[in-house]
Amino acid sequence: MDYSSILEQVFKESKAYSSVGKIANYIPELSNINPDKFGLYIQTKDNQHFELGDSLEPFSIQSISKVFTLSMAFSLLGENIWKRVGVEPSGSPFNSIVQLEYENGIPRNPFINPGALVITDILLTHLNNPKTDLLLFVRKLAQDDSINFDLNIAQSEKETGHHNASLVHMLKAHGNINNPCEEVLDFYYHQCSIVMNCKQLAQSFSPYASLIEPFDFASVELNKSQVKRINAIMLSSGFYDESGEFAFKVGLPGKSGVGGGIIAFLPHEYSIAVWSPKLNKKGNSVRGMKALELFTTLSGQSIF
Amino acid sequence: MDYSSILEQVFKESKAYSSVGKIANYIPELSNINPDKFGLYIQTKDNQHFELGDSLEPFSIQSISKVFTLSMAFSLLGENIWKRVGVEPSGSPFNSIVQLEYENGIPRNPFINPGALVITDILLTHLNNPKTDLLLFVRKLAQDDSINFDLNIAQSEKETGHHNASLVHMLKAHGNINNPCEEVLDFYYHQCSIVMNCKQLAQSFSPYASLIEPFDFASVELNKSQVKRINAIMLSSGFYDESGEFAFKVGLPGKSGVGGGIIAFLPHEYSIAVWSPKLNKKGNSVRGMKALELFTTLSGQSIF
Amino acid sequence: MDYSSILEQVFKESKAYSSVGKIANYIPELSNINPDKFGLYIQTKDNQHFELGDSLEPFSIQSISKVFTLSMAFSLLGENIWKRVGVEPSGSPFNSIVQLEYENGIPRNPFINPGALVITDILLTHLNNPKTDLLLFVRKLAQDDSINFDLNIAQSEKETGHHNASLVHMLKAHGNINNPCEEVLDFYYHQCSIVMNCKQLAQSFSPYASLIEPFDFASVELNKSQVKRINAIMLSSGFYDESGEFAFKVGLPGKSGVGGGIIAFLPHEYSIAVWSPKLNKKGNSVRGMKALELFTTLSGQSIF
Amino acid sequence: MDYSSILEQVFKESKAYSSVGKIANYIPELSNINPDKFGLYIQTKDNQHFELGDSLEPFSIQSISKVFTLSMAFSLLGENIWKRVGVEPSGSPFNSIVQLEYENGIPRNPFINPGALVITDILLTHLNNPKTDLLLFVRKLAQDDSINFDLNIAQSEKETGHHNASLVHMLKAHGNINNPCEEVLDFYYHQCSIVMNCKQLAQSFSPYASLIEPFDFASVELNKSQVKRINAIMLSSGFYDESGEFAFKVGLPGKSGVGGGIIAFLPHEYSIAVWSPKLNKKGNSVRGMKALELFTTLSGQSIF
Repeated sequence: MDYSSILEQVFKESKAYSSVGKIANYIPELSNINPDKFGLYIQTKDNQHFELGDSLEPFSIQSISKVFTLSMAFSLLGENIWKRVGVEPSGSPFNSIVQLEYENGIPRNPFINPGALVITDILLTHLNNPKTDLLLFVRKLAQDDSINFDLNIAQSEKETGHHNASLVHMLKAHGNINNPCEEVLDFYYHQCSIVMNCKQLAQSFSPYASLIEPFDFASVELNKSQVKRINAIMLSSGFYDESGEFAFKVGLPGKSGVGGGIIAFLPHEYSIAVWSPKLNKKGNSVRGMKALELFTTLSGQSIF
Repeated sequence: MDYSSILEQVFKESKAYSSVGKIANYIPELSNINPDKFGLYIQTKDNQHFELGDSLEPFSIQSISKVFTLSMAFSLLGENIWKRVGVEPSGSPFNSIVQLEYENGIPRNPFINPGALVITDILLTHLNNPKTDLLLFVRKLAQDDSINFDLNIAQSEKETGHHNASLVHMLKAHGNINNPCEEVLDFYYHQCSIVMNCKQLAQSFSPYASLIEPFDFASVELNKSQVKRINAIMLSSGFYDESGEFAFKVGLPGKSGVGGGIIAFLPHEYSIAVWSPKLNKKGNSVRGMKALELFTTLSGQSIF
Repeated sequence: MDYSSILEQVFKESKAYSSVGKIANYIPELSNINPDKFGLYIQTKDNQHFELGDSLEPFSIQSISKVFTLSMAFSLLGENIWKRVGVEPSGSPFNSIVQLEYENGIPRNPFINPGALVITDILLTHLNNPKTDLLLFVRKLAQDDSINFDLNIAQSEKETGHHNASLVHMLKAHGNINNPCEEVLDFYYHQCSIVMNCKQLAQSFSPYASLIEPFDFASVELNKSQVKRINAIMLSSGFYDESGEFAFKVGLPGKSGVGGGIIAFLPHEYSIAVWSPKLNKKGNSVRGMKALELFTTLSGQSIF
Repeated sequence: MDYSSILEQVFKESKAYSSVGKIANYIPELSNINPDKFGLYIQTKDNQHFELGDSLEPFSIQSISKVFTLSMAFSLLGENIWKRVGVEPSGSPFNSIVQLEYENGIPRNPFINPGALVITDILLTHLNNPKTDLLLFVRKLAQDDSINFDLNIAQSEKETGHHNASLVHMLKAHGNINNPCEEVLDFYYHQCSIVMNCKQLAQSFSPYASLIEPFDFASVELNKSQVKRINAIMLSSGFYDESGEFAFKVGLPGKSGVGGGIIAFLPHEYSIAVWSPKLNKKGNSVRGMKALELFTTLSGQSIF
């Protein structure tokens, strides 16, 4: 399919939404971004690509990194990983911490913060150089060695992140964190601070979209079945408390971050990365969500 | 694809699971069923079918009926339906009633009981003969005029259903029920009591699976986009508090009922109904879930 | 102590608060009351009394009746009553229904609605003429045979009381209601509809205040120890989610109702009833609370 | 009243309960205590005293210290203190952390851990030498300069106290902690580690029991009304999730600690300290609770 004309329409129709929402403002580094930025990049199965706007401008991927760390931990532990974190949607964010109480410290899934903190703890235990290993893995996926952490962002988040500190201590109180809380938080904030552009993101999700073979490099090895399972978690839990809405309106597995980025993909067809910094109240990019909804509506394709 | 040999293997390997779980015992009519029953029926896009075991034996479809009533209500109200019920997964069942409190009486999705009760209330308001209309719709979908309610089951559930009575009064206290609570419960229990077999179920989900065109008969009319959206809700919320697990292991949209039935489908390829009465603690058929997991693993197909 | 001059000051200083708050408006019969009404009546150990304003005007006692029904049920079951209801404060009202879920249908105390519904169920089981017996008991306590139900109020509350209907069905679903839900609600709303004036209320709490001997008439018999235990529950749970505030500021055991009435007492000294219809957000009389705070501050007496 | 013979009976009858319960085992220093220890000390208004068993053996007062820190903070801030912490009972411990979420970081009362952490933060802000000032205050109350922290206990608790660390970070995330979390925890654990014996405890609560005048020394000054208000909070919230039970069975204001100590008092009559290390599931001393219940039953005195 030639997506060029569809993209043009997506760009035009989604433009109205660029004035809606607010940039994440809890750390200065994120709030200084030009709110009008908009980028989009599609990578297809037959190695074509289509792009729009600021598709080469790097931004903080934030929670999109949770897919990469889950992949590494799943590769390391296999099915044993599910003893420490679940695969169910979490329901309202309101319940996130009380859920830990009555489910004995097992987070509902690896994409809510408590789950990602447990995944982080697993990587700390099993890797000799967790930060380096993560970067190497992401660079390999994106086929781009320039990808790096933004240490200012990592540092800022660490200083103000009392909610995450509360979560990691609660997990530790329940026996589901093995490393020191400070080390878990330090590595966690490094993950979130990874900076990528739309092109790199679309490229890095090609194996998830089955555009190329699954992972088999460095210490990370996943078979097709495992990749599909990660995709299922993205679909049910990839968009915070708006995962149902995204599946409902867009119909693709994906993952968002509070930096305004969204990655999504149609298995065997394409992966698509979009970026627009203004967020709705649930923490997802307003124009990014709308652009993807328009894209799947206009192209008439979805997993359903 | 010729599914015959796969089915044989599914039958054999899933047999070990037929001793696990317990039949729903809160109403006598459901608990009298032979626990060893097992049926499976596949309907494909090219109008082939494959079947196994007790595929023609009728059983109580229970919550699978929620897909039919949602379809009717969505057809009647269009997008306005989402003002009264959400599309997000519900998280732990533990929170179902307190969630109503802090989200002002708007149930999270139409497949948890509070959501289905709101859907029932909508049908009561908009249909002249809601029970008849529902039966006609289901018969049309299944292409079988023999489908009916089991009035003994409906009556039994009404007498013992204090949890649902509590929910409907709570919804009414929040202003999200317009008809008398007793009428809502009466119609709700009729829906749950519908009796079908695997063949009828597989047939009736053909339009959801895009094997045939979407609905356009009687008062129920849905376009392709609306059908896909219902499918998305099935994927994220179709299996109670095990929806993530089902998406993770099976990778298909679907819906289960405490009668032991499960319907699932791969869009554009097939719909599959399976029945085995013994349930796990989450209320889903043990052998049915396993059979579907084996089926998608062996066939190598899923939406991911 | 001569309370006359204190009362004068209480009247004057509390007057400013008569404009604050809102009359309970969920049933017409309660909302038609003149919002400026204010009555107060004190009964002392040496059989003196002091009164102010509309102390002889009858009003709906609402939840104050929960003390009477608890007394009857405690008399009937003895310590066994605590198997079906607890004695702990309930925390936020927000949690009232979810608390039933995780504490298996045992309400935290007899003064929250779920607890009072269980008490009602107990009386229905053990009394032949529960409504008559309750009236006879209250009339005996108040030494006034004119006390009666207001059937209009009882009827109105029954028709609109979906929150209580939800609670009683939830309790029944947990096995903690033995009679039909409708009968429980009917008797419950009759209790709430009892009409008394400040004088009758102050008189009827004399045995609780140890001004006269505890109960020993009709089927209701309680010893001193049992009466003190009921008093302890009044102190910790008598004012909805403001019980701590009342103990903190007033320092007396007591009970309030949404009709605007409050009863309180200093053991061995006096019982005091106050009435002013305007309520704060927690459902307690604004001027009534203030009057009692002033009274104990000026008299320099409290249980602490 | 001569309490000697009553005490003898209390000792005998409560002995059966010395085998019930478990010593707090989360820190080695607390778990090494001889479980059979039992001490009791009564200080009366006319300066008599009565004692039993190990009444002079020091133990870790743990949460009893929360009364001392609340007193200091109330003295420093006056009524403004209630902007940062409430006076209502907390309901189930289950809800403690989620309560912070929906009540915007304002703990329900100063005796649950989140509330005590806020009180600790207040003292850190307003005192130059908080640890020294606290010790001086407690020594003055108990009229004994030998009272001190147990630094081993303070250190142990700090290392293992991830639940409290979670709470303090959650409070900080809600803006209700002004000092660094580590400093709050450090001072908090020092408070809990104070070591006293029954005699010192009974003596130190004399002003709360109105046996002597309220506080007026060093920086701590409270009037009678303020002291009574602290007593009201002890009654409604002094025994974790068993405060209602204690008021119900014992009928005195008081405070317990997981070291096995309990302080209680009858205003204008006596203060009583009891110590027995084995705890029930709610964290209160089994034999201590029973001894106090027997004591008020046999003496026929309570605030009700």
